[in-house]
Amino acid sequence: VIREPVAPAADPALRDRYVAVRAQTAALAAPLSAEDCQIQSMPDASPTKWHLAHTTWFFETFVLSPHLPGYRDFEPRFRALFNSYYNSVGEQPLRAARGLVSRPGLDVVYAYRRHVDGAMTALLEGGRLAAGVARVVELGLQHEQQHQELILTDIKHALWAQPGRPQYAAPAPPRPPRDAVPRLAWQAYEAGIVAIGHDGAGFAFDNELPHHQALVPAAALASRLVTCGEYLDFVRDGGYERPALWLAAGWEAVRAAGWHAPLYWRRQDGEWFITTLHGDRALAPAEPVCHVSFYEADAYARWAGARLPTEFEWERAARDVAGDGNFLESGALHPRPLTGRDGPAGGPAQLFGDVWEWTASPYTGYPGYRPQAGALGEYNGKFMSDQWVLRGGSCATPRAHMRATYRNFFPAATRWQFSGVRLARDAGA
Amino acid sequence: VIREPVAPAADPALRDRYVAVRAQTAALAAPLSAEDCQIQSMPDASPTKWHLAHTTWFFETFVLSPHLPGYRDFEPRFRALFNSYYNSVGEQPLRAARGLVSRPGLDVVYAYRRHVDGAMTALLEGGRLAAGVARVVELGLQHEQQHQELILTDIKHALWAQPGRPQYAAPAPPRPPRDAVPRLAWQAYEAGIVAIGHDGAGFAFDNELPHHQALVPAAALASRLVTCGEYLDFVRDGGYERPALWLAAGWEAVRAAGWHAPLYWRRQDGEWFITTLHGDRALAPAEPVCHVSFYEADAYARWAGARLPTEFEWERAARDVAGDGNFLESGALHPRPLTGRDGPAGGPAQLFGDVWEWTASPYTGYPGYRPQAGALGEYNGKFMSDQWVLRGGSCATPRAHMRATYRNFFPAATRWQFSGVRLARDAGA
Amino acid sequence: VIREPVAPAADPALRDRYVAVRAQTAALAAPLSAEDCQIQSMPDASPTKWHLAHTTWFFETFVLSPHLPGYRDFEPRFRALFNSYYNSVGEQPLRAARGLVSRPGLDVVYAYRRHVDGAMTALLEGGRLAAGVARVVELGLQHEQQHQELILTDIKHALWAQPGRPQYAAPAPPRPPRDAVPRLAWQAYEAGIVAIGHDGAGFAFDNELPHHQALVPAAALASRLVTCGEYLDFVRDGGYERPALWLAAGWEAVRAAGWHAPLYWRRQDGEWFITTLHGDRALAPAEPVCHVSFYEADAYARWAGARLPTEFEWERAARDVAGDGNFLESGALHPRPLTGRDGPAGGPAQLFGDVWEWTASPYTGYPGYRPQAGALGEYNGKFMSDQWVLRGGSCATPRAHMRATYRNFFPAATRWQFSGVRLARDAGA
Amino acid sequence: VIREPVAPAADPALRDRYVAVRAQTAALAAPLSAEDCQIQSMPDASPTKWHLAHTTWFFETFVLSPHLPGYRDFEPRFRALFNSYYNSVGEQPLRAARGLVSRPGLDVVYAYRRHVDGAMTALLEGGRLAAGVARVVELGLQHEQQHQELILTDIKHALWAQPGRPQYAAPAPPRPPRDAVPRLAWQAYEAGIVAIGHDGAGFAFDNELPHHQALVPAAALASRLVTCGEYLDFVRDGGYERPALWLAAGWEAVRAAGWHAPLYWRRQDGEWFITTLHGDRALAPAEPVCHVSFYEADAYARWAGARLPTEFEWERAARDVAGDGNFLESGALHPRPLTGRDGPAGGPAQLFGDVWEWTASPYTGYPGYRPQAGALGEYNGKFMSDQWVLRGGSCATPRAHMRATYRNFFPAATRWQFSGVRLARDAGA
Repeated sequence: VIREPVAPAADPALRDRYVAVRAQTAALAAPLSAEDCQIQSMPDASPTKWHLAHTTWFFETFVLSPHLPGYRDFEPRFRALFNSYYNSVGEQPLRAARGLVSRPGLDVVYAYRRHVDGAMTALLEGGRLAAGVARVVELGLQHEQQHQELILTDIKHALWAQPGRPQYAAPAPPRPPRDAVPRLAWQAYEAGIVAIGHDGAGFAFDNELPHHQALVPAAALASRLVTCGEYLDFVRDGGYERPALWLAAGWEAVRAAGWHAPLYWRRQDGEWFITTLHGDRALAPAEPVCHVSFYEADAYARWAGARLPTEFEWERAARDVAGDGNFLESGALHPRPLTGRDGPAGGPAQLFGDVWEWTASPYTGYPGYRPQAGALGEYNGKFMSDQWVLRGGSCATPRAHMRATYRNFFPAATRWQFSGVRLARDAGA
Repeated sequence: VIREPVAPAADPALRDRYVAVRAQTAALAAPLSAEDCQIQSMPDASPTKWHLAHTTWFFETFVLSPHLPGYRDFEPRFRALFNSYYNSVGEQPLRAARGLVSRPGLDVVYAYRRHVDGAMTALLEGGRLAAGVARVVELGLQHEQQHQELILTDIKHALWAQPGRPQYAAPAPPRPPRDAVPRLAWQAYEAGIVAIGHDGAGFAFDNELPHHQALVPAAALASRLVTCGEYLDFVRDGGYERPALWLAAGWEAVRAAGWHAPLYWRRQDGEWFITTLHGDRALAPAEPVCHVSFYEADAYARWAGARLPTEFEWERAARDVAGDGNFLESGALHPRPLTGRDGPAGGPAQLFGDVWEWTASPYTGYPGYRPQAGALGEYNGKFMSDQWVLRGGSCATPRAHMRATYRNFFPAATRWQFSGVRLARDAGA
Repeated sequence: VIREPVAPAADPALRDRYVAVRAQTAALAAPLSAEDCQIQSMPDASPTKWHLAHTTWFFETFVLSPHLPGYRDFEPRFRALFNSYYNSVGEQPLRAARGLVSRPGLDVVYAYRRHVDGAMTALLEGGRLAAGVARVVELGLQHEQQHQELILTDIKHALWAQPGRPQYAAPAPPRPPRDAVPRLAWQAYEAGIVAIGHDGAGFAFDNELPHHQALVPAAALASRLVTCGEYLDFVRDGGYERPALWLAAGWEAVRAAGWHAPLYWRRQDGEWFITTLHGDRALAPAEPVCHVSFYEADAYARWAGARLPTEFEWERAARDVAGDGNFLESGALHPRPLTGRDGPAGGPAQLFGDVWEWTASPYTGYPGYRPQAGALGEYNGKFMSDQWVLRGGSCATPRAHMRATYRNFFPAATRWQFSGVRLARDAGA
Repeated sequence: VIREPVAPAADPALRDRYVAVRAQTAALAAPLSAEDCQIQSMPDASPTKWHLAHTTWFFETFVLSPHLPGYRDFEPRFRALFNSYYNSVGEQPLRAARGLVSRPGLDVVYAYRRHVDGAMTALLEGGRLAAGVARVVELGLQHEQQHQELILTDIKHALWAQPGRPQYAAPAPPRPPRDAVPRLAWQAYEAGIVAIGHDGAGFAFDNELPHHQALVPAAALASRLVTCGEYLDFVRDGGYERPALWLAAGWEAVRAAGWHAPLYWRRQDGEWFITTLHGDRALAPAEPVCHVSFYEADAYARWAGARLPTEFEWERAARDVAGDGNFLESGALHPRPLTGRDGPAGGPAQLFGDVWEWTASPYTGYPGYRPQAGALGEYNGKFMSDQWVLRGGSCATPRAHMRATYRNFFPAATRWQFSGVRLARDAGA
């Protein structure tokens, strides 16, 4: 997964990053009670307690157990209990039943974290670390950052699913009443051979490799994300009642699930409201729309006379843009309206952060793709079917976790992630 | 529901019973963590936290709110949140989603209990209590006792459903190795008109009324419950593979659910083990079999050349027998082998306690049955279809809750209750 | 099943009845194409072709094969293919997949019928027939009459389920516009010990035995069936929206299945229409309501301030009433309005024919019930759970098939039979 | 869809092709009874009668009704009844319920075909035909050819699903006992920019357009298809029990569906048998494996140390190879073993015919893809998600229907088509 040896010697930076990432996870769980951390509102989502334990299990299983002499498991049963999907490691409890595991309790899971953190810091402070081990530590930190985002999206769903819709965090300060955003413009790109994928130093997942050439047609990308106000126009125009706007599988999903708006939207007395991690409030038209499925993103684009970008079109645009944006660290925990000064200077705005952008690209391996050897080869490769690539990260993604070559992926009907829409169109369209 | 005014004046006994019953509920939940109290392992079962809250809701809704002047709800939202199935009171959250309600937390539910207990003791200590109100208080206590049993059966299932099968309570002392029980004998009864149902003072549910006459044929009842050893003979004889032994619906259940032994039995390396509230241990042949469905009880009886008793046959036998037995108060939390001295003196043994006994009687109203007026009329009457009557109480039933006319009822495929088998046969068979 | 030897010698009457019953089956299938005879619109219903074959299979399996020396199966594979539910005979194809069996075709099935009919008439004409064999022949004829009714109810559903709702038979003559029926009166019965079940000569199913005494309370029975007009009042009064009127399981069925009127009713532009075997037409208020489930019958009765009769109350009323009525032979194939002259002379009207009457009695065995020995013991006994007794026969029942002790049975949610409602009430209610 | 005007004047060739294609459809249905033509064994498959009617509906709806003055529908109700999925045309009956439509019968559907054929030949013989109309006629013929293949694959499934597994056509002559095939060799291709998609005269579907350039990496293609013998090695090596060989979604499918071999394989007494349209017979190791899902093809390739080709790799190889092979016209109705003389001369063998070859390419639109305008735009575009591309046609495909740019597509779990496996590998692998 990692192209270059990251840590040929004891690496204080790695140790510090370890401590910081682990602390960030605990901070995200801090507002939650033991009961909150226990619940699982659907098979796709996991309890917070499970996330806390599974990220710890990763370090125990792939770092401490094989690489720290004398390390003793905190509790041998956890080896199976907190395995997610690594068949090479052994059997796993049913994913949909994670919310039934009341034992160990949350306090024991925190003790498990402390136990592993103690051993990990000892390892990281203990002198020369083999490059291969450092790579797995780095992978473990990237893995934990992914679960930080899932902690937020999963608890958002679980709290929303309850009567009363309790909030995760205290209400955000009142939003300014501005409902306008800069006009959507089109940024044009020439056809040509484009370098795609990770190349160079730094961490990347194996699905960003090999670095390779692709012939990408001319196309234009929207200068910003689609807003809630624009999406509301689609809803009001009968978007959810017109099969001609939808992929066949999307239309089936609309009818089977009764979709009539994005997840977390609801209409009451003629007004639209949304649920955020800070509680319920009125829909803000200027905010980027989120919690839409691929099918909805695709249908919206068709309605708007456009299409979704391919992941290569997206990457071509993103590689020359500074990777900044509204990430987890902003504390907003929700996408934010584009302000005038965010406008297209040197490229489309909002490429990074705010919402994951659905692309028109099914998730497959790049030419010559090889999964990592061993159990960690199950990390990405086996999911390369029946999913779609999303790019750019969201307001729940740690900033340090994101880059222009990063490929996220979810099935087309997925809605509980912070997933939104950027439009594209063919050159000359 | 109650035939005679129970409490024409301030009733210290009722107040004391209230305090004792409520304390008993809390004592049953005491071994459980906040996470344990949160989980729901199947739609039929409820979280302990829900039981704690719903029993409290009953007093708030049916006693305090209408009858204690100036009473203020602890939290108005709870009126809907902890309603079980009273359509007259309003909408209820989906039964299968009770395990998702992380807010309020367990500590808040205990505060809710204290709030209601304070108001209830004030009411009960406050002078003359209208007879109608006292009746509802009494019903609330009976209701809470029913939920005490459910707390145990529900948590037994929820703990068993987890990897590792944690136990509810510390292991019981080792059982004596005795595997023998008194030989099964047959107690004969003459045909005749028998008085059925509740008649006289004391509490009874509306489904035990009206007291009426029934013509009950001659029959014989087994002197004791069917044991695990006897049931194991049925299993070993291919009981679960021979459709001729089963009702058609039972055989469908066997195949659909993959039943091959009672719930909580498992076979490992040729030996049988069971899960109890005290943890896993070897099957004890002398113990009464439990956690069988009506279908299994019926099939076993057919295999044994017998049948299940009707509820009238059972009541005819039970009304002259002292209503003692292995109830909740024994602390065993599991059925116990019959000892020599428990033998049939004056009637069959083990009629009360140990296990609920499936009868051959579908659950319907007695001739002239009228549900109680108002919302409490939903307590029993609306369930009078598609269920079967069980009699006698179990090791999880409070002793004071049981009597010879008591009618419990569950659907035929139910297995998570402490339900077992007593045989009957026709006269001359 | 049969109490007395029916046929001690060659029995021309039995031979003639055999020919007549078999011809009646073919006559019912005559209006149907090969395609019509192929389809199966739900697991509960079977294709006409299957009924034609299975009734033939019955004679081949239980009469010819064991009792006619030298008989050769028409096609040995049919022994398994057309078995319904006799586990003792062997495996059966999945019930829900009967509509997939295109081979043998309809013409082959008719050849199968001719083959068996030839052998059967040879047997019946061939001299002394053992009494036991004659009994099974009689059972086979009764069995075939049951399937005659099912042919009609199953094809009614299958045609209705198609776009266009084609009709089974040519339109009936226009109905007279009379919408009135005699006023509903109450026929009172004293409490007392009543003889229940079959006693004497003639055929009866084993579930009508043993003849026994039952103590039946005083009660009153409605003088006629509930009409469509009366039921429409229930619908218009919000009957399908008020949970307090329903058994809990019934209310679940209403919500899960979206019931809002009886099966085959539909509302269009404010008017109600129904589907009959003669095609679609306007609802006739004076006709007895049919195609209601037990749950709907029970809810209607509750709404009307009454209840359903028990099967003993029904039998007490029916045994002194002439068993005539609107049966299959009338050709109406639909219940008919009661005319003035049908009024209560010597007992309630419409007890026989028109519609099966749901009773308040779950289907169980009478005291001392013993299923017939051998495979034919699977005929009735194994279905004695989770169903309800219906009495009296319908417009699709052959007249000769019905009697006062006859017990039909279906699960509570069943609607595709001609099932309707007679009210009862407690004495003094 | 069609690049060039096909028929600027009355076109005898088009008329003759119309007649020939229509006759071919009828010939495929000829061995089937009315009952055979009625049945539908799963929602994905349709009854033969429906195929006969729907292909006719296509000409009536898109050609005769808009373009033949004075044309009168055979039966106006058929406009909705035999619509497949064209939302623009109107509502459609539920796909899964096609097997319930007994009316019209098969004879009426044949009359419908004759009615439309009469009008169509009149139109085609009637002088100058607008180019746009000729294009739709051509599309209708291509559409009918697709349904010819579906008639065979659907009836194969429907016959196999019955007890007794009757055959579609008389047994084929005995196969020569040869079990060997030419050794699998690898044909190498250089990296480069390759022209992809349809370009030039002749018919193509809109999903083969636009013609465009793609950068295709160096790779090698297997010289022939994977055989049953090779696939059996995979089965015997535990292929269906080793999750590491499978995509995650594939492994879920294996477990959920209980797959342990290709569809239509079964093991009996240690030997393997398969069901063909000519009946059951022993597995022939030299035949190409077929009736595997994408997941199985992918897992087999991984087990074999290879991968599936992308659709561009396949097209690069196929465009210089003669498009001949074992198509429908051979009458084999089953893939055939490669003989020595079929070996790799000028390219891989068996690219065309025998079995559809799963590719590693999800089905999406080519850059700049535009669906056809109007209702016919629903033909392909709306299915461009959650499916995979297959190439090359099968033994059930009419030869004239196939070409190197043809893109077939099915969901990954599809098995009832004649779908097989060709291996590929990276250059240097």
